[in-house]
Amino acid sequence: MVDFNEFLKKRRSIRDFEDKGVPLDIVKEIIKDSCLAPSSGHGQPWRFIIINKKGLIKRLSDESKANMLNSIEKNASSSVKQYEAVLRLEDYNVFYNAPCLVYIVGPKEARTLYVDCALAACYFMFSSIQRGLGTCWINLGSDIRNPETLEEIGLPENHRIVAPMIVGYPKSIPNPPDRNEPQILMVIS
Amino acid sequence: MVDFNEFLKKRRSIRDFEDKGVPLDIVKEIIKDSCLAPSSGHGQPWRFIIINKKGLIKRLSDESKANMLNSIEKNASSSVKQYEAVLRLEDYNVFYNAPCLVYIVGPKEARTLYVDCALAACYFMFSSIQRGLGTCWINLGSDIRNPETLEEIGLPENHRIVAPMIVGYPKSIPNPPDRNEPQILMVIS
Repeated sequence: MVDFNEFLKKRRSIRDFEDKGVPLDIVKEIIKDSCLAPSSGHGQPWRFIIINKKGLIKRLSDESKANMLNSIEKNASSSVKQYEAVLRLEDYNVFYNAPCLVYIVGPKEARTLYVDCALAACYFMFSSIQRGLGTCWINLGSDIRNPETLEEIGLPENHRIVAPMIVGYPKSIPNPPDRNEPQILMVIS
Repeated sequence: MVDFNEFLKKRRSIRDFEDKGVPLDIVKEIIKDSCLAPSSGHGQPWRFIIINKKGLIKRLSDESKANMLNSIEKNASSSVKQYEAVLRLEDYNVFYNAPCLVYIVGPKEARTLYVDCALAACYFMFSSIQRGLGTCWINLGSDIRNPETLEEIGLPENHRIVAPMIVGYPKSIPNPPDRNEPQILMVIS
């Protein structure tokens, strides 16, 4: 019998990777598992873009950083303002030099796109653990807007990036962060 | 060694339950596991409301149905218009007579509330499987707006219902639905 509890506790967000690529076949298996997630009305709005090339991943990091810094300059109450200092560090790669990046994306008009893709992302994380891989959902890597880049990565015009997932073999696994106690607002029984 | 693949494949959305309550302690364990989910900036915006009482669950179903039908009457392009026929069935309980309902909720101002709560909901589903329980995320059960009801269930004014999760012992487990092949838009390697 499986100790599922251990399984749930085992997942960590990984930001430190071995210098070792992820075979494309394995990435595709993980994506196949991700499609087992439930979705609203079984709509399955998730689509995937695999970028298994460190040079391009670095360029995407640079572009996302530049776009966010641009937003901050235009609007001091930007939601990414809190990350300004780190975004200004030239050496900071938002994707932590991961060997592989998978964008989970989907059509903008899908009403429940965000939660459906988040469920797929959760499956993605668990499927990766089985294969000895670590992942992290990198919100700061989603600000890709330059038309040439969107064309290069194959994001259709009516689609949106929801979850940029980095994947790689963990070099170190961090301790679990402290967590809040569950906040149960009401029990009616 | 665990066959994680089987684990991922095992989850089904359950809509048919034994007439048997779920012990409150078990519901609380599942909620504790749900709080192991990752969240943006480790914000952990999830809060929980446990309703372990069939009579109230039925009333919440009735209210959600009435509010949705009201929306449809006011706005024919309402996103729930497609469910109108089923919502008009008096016997239709959106919560499928489940013995337990947990609302995953959180503060409206949390920027990533929906995706963070979706990740917690995914953990909720997996933690439930371990305990022999089935779950289903019931979007149609989230349209609770009457002030007396919001007070009764303890939803603070600045909070929003994200995921109404039904929980119970499955009476029958449906076959997996057909699924689309993974749609990989681009591979760059």
